[in-house]
Amino acid sequence: MNETVKYLLDEQHLPRFWYNINADLPQPLDQILHPGTQQPITADELEVIFPRAVIEQEVSTEREIEIPQPVREVLRQWRPSPLYRARRLEKALNTPAKIFYKYEGVSPAGSHKANTAIAQAFYNKAEGVKRITTETGAGQWGSSLALAGSMFGLEILVYMVKVSFNQKPYRRAFMETFGAQCIASPSDTTASGRAILAEHPDSSGSLGIAISEAVELAAQRDDTKYALGSVLNHVLLHQTVIGLEAQKQMEMADAYPDMVIGCTGGGSNFAGIAFPYIGEQMRGGHTIQSIAVEPSACPTLTKGRFAYDFGDTAHLTPLCKMYTLGSTFVPPGFHAGGLRYHGMAPQISHLAALGYIDPRSYNQLECFAAGIQFAKAEGIIPAPEANHAVRAVIDEAEKCRESGESKTILFNLSGHGHFDMQAYTDYLGGKLKDLDYAENEVAMALAGLPAIG
Amino acid sequence: MNETVKYLLDEQHLPRFWYNINADLPQPLDQILHPGTQQPITADELEVIFPRAVIEQEVSTEREIEIPQPVREVLRQWRPSPLYRARRLEKALNTPAKIFYKYEGVSPAGSHKANTAIAQAFYNKAEGVKRITTETGAGQWGSSLALAGSMFGLEILVYMVKVSFNQKPYRRAFMETFGAQCIASPSDTTASGRAILAEHPDSSGSLGIAISEAVELAAQRDDTKYALGSVLNHVLLHQTVIGLEAQKQMEMADAYPDMVIGCTGGGSNFAGIAFPYIGEQMRGGHTIQSIAVEPSACPTLTKGRFAYDFGDTAHLTPLCKMYTLGSTFVPPGFHAGGLRYHGMAPQISHLAALGYIDPRSYNQLECFAAGIQFAKAEGIIPAPEANHAVRAVIDEAEKCRESGESKTILFNLSGHGHFDMQAYTDYLGGKLKDLDYAENEVAMALAGLPAIG
Repeated sequence: MNETVKYLLDEQHLPRFWYNINADLPQPLDQILHPGTQQPITADELEVIFPRAVIEQEVSTEREIEIPQPVREVLRQWRPSPLYRARRLEKALNTPAKIFYKYEGVSPAGSHKANTAIAQAFYNKAEGVKRITTETGAGQWGSSLALAGSMFGLEILVYMVKVSFNQKPYRRAFMETFGAQCIASPSDTTASGRAILAEHPDSSGSLGIAISEAVELAAQRDDTKYALGSVLNHVLLHQTVIGLEAQKQMEMADAYPDMVIGCTGGGSNFAGIAFPYIGEQMRGGHTIQSIAVEPSACPTLTKGRFAYDFGDTAHLTPLCKMYTLGSTFVPPGFHAGGLRYHGMAPQISHLAALGYIDPRSYNQLECFAAGIQFAKAEGIIPAPEANHAVRAVIDEAEKCRESGESKTILFNLSGHGHFDMQAYTDYLGGKLKDLDYAENEVAMALAGLPAIG
Repeated sequence: MNETVKYLLDEQHLPRFWYNINADLPQPLDQILHPGTQQPITADELEVIFPRAVIEQEVSTEREIEIPQPVREVLRQWRPSPLYRARRLEKALNTPAKIFYKYEGVSPAGSHKANTAIAQAFYNKAEGVKRITTETGAGQWGSSLALAGSMFGLEILVYMVKVSFNQKPYRRAFMETFGAQCIASPSDTTASGRAILAEHPDSSGSLGIAISEAVELAAQRDDTKYALGSVLNHVLLHQTVIGLEAQKQMEMADAYPDMVIGCTGGGSNFAGIAFPYIGEQMRGGHTIQSIAVEPSACPTLTKGRFAYDFGDTAHLTPLCKMYTLGSTFVPPGFHAGGLRYHGMAPQISHLAALGYIDPRSYNQLECFAAGIQFAKAEGIIPAPEANHAVRAVIDEAEKCRESGESKTILFNLSGHGHFDMQAYTDYLGGKLKDLDYAENEVAMALAGLPAIG
């Protein structure tokens, strides 16, 4: 009745290489453009805010990129992460579906974000950087970079989206415990922040605004670089350890997924689990359904436009071709702060446009209901972001119950909800509401997109 | 520089038996007495509040007691838990000491408490119990029992010490997410609670009071039993999986501890890691130093009296021979809520009286400082309770630096601090104070001890 089925890999199976999906794309990605000239950006120009090694990864088309030994030596504290068969959830749903989940909440920061934080901190340290600036939504990324900074001896400055800063004081405390500095965004410490505050003194902030603030500071000082927790190719690359491990663990379970499911904000945890499988598919392997799940109140893939746009609100970042709701769009303050981003990773956008990814969206109440159902069966309380993936999994498993099909579902449980308990309290107390999709605001933001390409 | 050294056991090495230290004691424990008659209590009398299987374990002198298969099937979700060599901490301290830690924060409830919660829920379910009442201090035990109740389909009612209930709303949310009911203690739902409130309307509560409330309810209904998260023999027994696994993992590391360290409130996490080693010692094996670390504001082992006392404030529980500060003593509201107990496990008390255990106490500020030092080096933020163990470890490692000795230190990192971030915020903000040892109150409580034995 209560059998836990766990697939563990020993440390020898911690991947030695990341998987770079650029090597297998049927058509290459569109180039990244300079925010001022709108011409293809050069490595030298990117080096104002990023270390050289990361820029090389951003444009690399090598299929395998070696994981530096010092990065592996930290990752192995919690990696390979466990893969579970969710037998108790299957029983609770009375479904013939086989549900597997890869659990990334085992990292000391509680989510997959640590996978890239450790790598980015390593590369920055190796190139003599003293300080890294960044943004954070839910706080998972900021916590991970704070942890990584502490491991490699780097100063970390985090702009935290104001609505999350207020909702999640424990995340801030987590970052500060590791010695990082955490500032609510928009703030008066940057020109971008002050410009937003002048126009919207009550702004609850957004990832796009926080990115502007962090990038602005990084561009000002030679000893300071910027790190991004999602969206860019190198970040998604660093997350592929998830899927590479999962492939071996699914083999141990003698199973191959019919569908792979992850939630998407910027796209990195979804890419982490799905890209190694999509890569196999593009090289002629099994065809799988890759489901990217986003919040209905910030429906980038399902209602956005595939176009060139800025990564931030103040238009300091390069332009990427991606699904976007418009970089001036500020998503409403729902509880999955990690999914409140106007854009989507260019690689995921490209694959979605090519038909390799199946996006869908859910409202937050149905996601919390799914998360609690999962917790009661499996014992782990998911982060509100991950609840979106859980919702889709339960829906698919229920479809299998109706149809009698025994599909194999693999999903990424990208983080635990220990720092999100206020959201659960609000949900259980009936205080949480579904938030409207701000159709008019998105239309206005999309109308303002630069006319390129 | 950043090398993580981890010793993992596969599931085949999850222990099949618990280790019962009663089998190896040079003198047997003193008997448990009935609270009314003060005569040795019978199994039938204990059955009013505990299931039969647990009562049998309480008095067993068998060295090995089999772990039921359904319990192992749940435990293996996170067990065997990892053992780490704290190389980064050793480097930071510049010590020749070798520091190892067993990490129990990997359980879904975040601490070692789940080890016994799962076992107790199983035995209650097997005997037809519908509802379990309990108390919780920091919330680790209540969370664990809530989780276990959800796994085995039992109703859980938790009396949470009021000071922790207010300090830690996320712990309450955690329990409620799993469907448990959580009430601040002292409450008006029981006669014991109402009696305390009548005399001390502002009482911040204590584990002793919360136990009275939970026991009172359990004694009233046949379908309801009571579960205790520490102190009693069967609880300590269930925690020995920690030390049994650690013994195998230390062998993998080709090391044997010179000292084993754990924090002590009721004593279960310390017993979990130390008893298998103390048992070896009593059977003629290596002599080790077993250090039990308690808060200076609740110094049971270092300043208490070894005498018969009640487990609770209202004197509803049986009497045990133990180190105690007096069952009417209410410890001040420091942040390690799990260590705010007037008594100490009879087995630990007995071993301390026989000279097998070396107790010491620390104030909370020095413990938080140690916890932050540990977090920055090892990446894991300890629970405030575990910070007491960390403080002793760092002190011992620093002594090794002075003496040049390369001692091997093993400690139990009993839980993470994700639900204790308010305490870290207060500490980092300079708002935390050391709390005085309430010498007069303890003297009064000790003066009120029953004159037995």
